[in-house]
Amino acid sequence: MGSTCVRIAIDAMGGDHAPGEIVAGALRAREELGIEVLLVGDPQQIEAALPSKTNLGQVEIVSATEAIAMDEEPLSAIRRKPKASINVAMNLVKNQKADGVVSAGHSGAAMAAALLRLGRLPGIDRPAIGAVFPTLIASKPVLILDVGANVDCRPKFLDQFAVMGSIYSEYVLGTPNPKVGLLNIGEEDSKGNDAAVRANQMLRENSQISFIGNAEGRDVLSGRFDVIVCDGFVGNVLLKFAEAVGDIVLQILREELPQGLRGQIGSAILKPNLKRIKQRVDHAEHGGGLLLGVAGICIIGHGSSQAPSIFNAIRIAKEAVDNSVLQRIQSQYQSLQQESN
Amino acid sequence: MGSTCVRIAIDAMGGDHAPGEIVAGALRAREELGIEVLLVGDPQQIEAALPSKTNLGQVEIVSATEAIAMDEEPLSAIRRKPKASINVAMNLVKNQKADGVVSAGHSGAAMAAALLRLGRLPGIDRPAIGAVFPTLIASKPVLILDVGANVDCRPKFLDQFAVMGSIYSEYVLGTPNPKVGLLNIGEEDSKGNDAAVRANQMLRENSQISFIGNAEGRDVLSGRFDVIVCDGFVGNVLLKFAEAVGDIVLQILREELPQGLRGQIGSAILKPNLKRIKQRVDHAEHGGGLLLGVAGICIIGHGSSQAPSIFNAIRIAKEAVDNSVLQRIQSQYQSLQQESN
Repeated sequence: MGSTCVRIAIDAMGGDHAPGEIVAGALRAREELGIEVLLVGDPQQIEAALPSKTNLGQVEIVSATEAIAMDEEPLSAIRRKPKASINVAMNLVKNQKADGVVSAGHSGAAMAAALLRLGRLPGIDRPAIGAVFPTLIASKPVLILDVGANVDCRPKFLDQFAVMGSIYSEYVLGTPNPKVGLLNIGEEDSKGNDAAVRANQMLRENSQISFIGNAEGRDVLSGRFDVIVCDGFVGNVLLKFAEAVGDIVLQILREELPQGLRGQIGSAILKPNLKRIKQRVDHAEHGGGLLLGVAGICIIGHGSSQAPSIFNAIRIAKEAVDNSVLQRIQSQYQSLQQESN
Repeated sequence: MGSTCVRIAIDAMGGDHAPGEIVAGALRAREELGIEVLLVGDPQQIEAALPSKTNLGQVEIVSATEAIAMDEEPLSAIRRKPKASINVAMNLVKNQKADGVVSAGHSGAAMAAALLRLGRLPGIDRPAIGAVFPTLIASKPVLILDVGANVDCRPKFLDQFAVMGSIYSEYVLGTPNPKVGLLNIGEEDSKGNDAAVRANQMLRENSQISFIGNAEGRDVLSGRFDVIVCDGFVGNVLLKFAEAVGDIVLQILREELPQGLRGQIGSAILKPNLKRIKQRVDHAEHGGGLLLGVAGICIIGHGSSQAPSIFNAIRIAKEAVDNSVLQRIQSQYQSLQQESN
C-alpha cells in the first residue's frame, strides 16, 4: 500500500439511489473519517453526481464500464461482466490498491465477486453475511450471521460463523468478550432439529468463543447476546422481517399519532422525541451487512441505502481495517491448525 | 352432542395466570358468546377463582387432579399424568362432551395430548400450530403455520399446512379465497434450499388453494398474503421475535415519548392515540395459536395469556366449531382420495 491512510473502494453504481446517494455518502466519509475513497463506476455519471464545488483532483474515480442489475443471476453476471463496478472494486482490494469494498448493489453479486476475486480465508468453509441489529439496550447492538449467504448450514459452518462473529463484535463493535448464542426454538441444549443439537454441542466445546447457549426469537433483540449464529435461511427471513417491522412501526405511528385535534397538537409537541424513536427503530440508521470469511473487507449495504447508510457502511469498513479483523480471523485458524498438528 | 349450544373445555390449570385469568376469560366468553364452558382442573382452586356472585349451578367444573408444569418433557408428562387437566380436557372432546379445547398451558403438552387422545385427521401427516399475526392492513390478519410443532418439514407437510390454513382463513378469519405464500428468502420460484424449491412446486400444482408465490420476511406483515406456510423452526423463531418486537416497540415508546417537558405534555395529550397503537402492536390482543390437523378443535393460548386473550381464544374455538373447520379439512382429503382412486 503506497499510503498509510485507509482506502475504501466504493461501488458507485450499486443500489437503488446510485450513483447520487452513494457518492454523497462517500464524500462525507472522506471528509469526516480521514480516509481515501475510490469511486468505482461510470466516470461520467459519477462526475455528474459530484457537487459542483468538488475539486476533482481530490476525488479518485476508477472507471468501470459495466454494472450488475438487481434481477441478474449473480454468479453468471459476475463472470459475464468482468468490468462490472463490483468486480473492478474487488480487484482493487485483490491488487492492494484498496483496503476494503463497500457496495449497496446486488448482494448475491457482491458475494460472488468477493469469492471469485478474493477467495476464502484459510480455515473458513463458507463466508457468511452478518447484520447488526439494535437491541433493547440502546448502546448494545447484536450481530446476527448468516443472514443470507448459505441457505443450508452444517454445524461446522455455524461454529466458524461464531468465531468470525466474535472477532468482529469485539474489534469492530467494541464488545469485550462477546456472548455468543445459537438461534433455536428453545433454551435447552436438546432443543431443535438434529443440526441444531449438534451445532449447540460444537459451540459449547469451542474454547475460542464465549457460548452462552441457545437464543430464541424473543432473545434476539433483548441485548443478552452479542453474536447470534443461524443458517442463512432463517437469518434472512428474520432480517427482512425486522426491517419491515421497523417500517411498519413508523407507519403506524404516522397513521395513528396525528389523528384528531389532540393527535395533531400532541404530535407537533413530540416531534423531537419521535425523531429519536425513528433513529432507534429505523434500519437505515444501522448501516450495512458485512461479508465475513472472504480474504478482504467487504461491506454490503442495503439496496435502499442513502447517503447516511453509505457513510455508516464506510465507517464500519474503516473500523474493520483499523482493527485488523481479517488478520485476527486468520490467526485464530492458524493457531488451531498448529494445535492439531 | 346432547346440546345444540357450543361447548368448549377450558384447561383452567394451564398458563402463567392460571386459574384466575383463565376462569375470568371463560366466564366472559360464556356470557358474551352464548356458549357453555367446562372448566377443567382442581375444583377447589377453580371455585376460589370464581367471583363470589357466580351461581355455581351455572358453571360446569370438571375435576382434574394433576397439571403439567412448563418445564416438563411433554410426551412423557402426558403419559405419566393421565389426570392432567389437558388430558381430561382432550378426553371431553374425544367423548363428545365438548366441541373444542382451549389451553394456555405447555404448548408441547397440549399438542402431545391432542395427538394421543384425538389422533390426526385422515390424510394429514403432521399437525401444525398456526398463529394469526396482525398486518399493515388493520382488518386483514395473516395466518402463519407451522410456528413450532415440526422442526423439520417435508414439502408434503407444507402442502397440507397450506390446505388446512386456507380453510381456516376462509371459514374462521373470513377471508374469501385466501392467498397462500411459502416463506422463503426470495420471490423467485427457484429461491431457497432444495426443500423450499420442491415445496414451491407442490404448492403451485395444488388446485385446492390459491398459491401466489414465495413470501419473504418483509412480506409477512404486508397484508399481501392471507396464509403463509413454513417449517416449525423458522415459524417459531419468527413468532417469538414478532412478539418480542411488539413489546420492545411499546417499551421504546414508553421510554422516549415522555422525555422532557414537551414529551410529558405531548404524551398526555396523545393518550388515546397511544392506546390504539398498543392495540395494533401488542400480541396479547390477538389471542392464541391453533392446532390444525388433529381430530378436534384445539386452541393453544400464549403462556402469558390473561382474561382478554383467553376470551379471544375461546371465540376462535367457537368460530372453528360453528364453521365446521374439521369437517371441511376432512372432506378436502376425502375428495382427493376419491380422485386418485
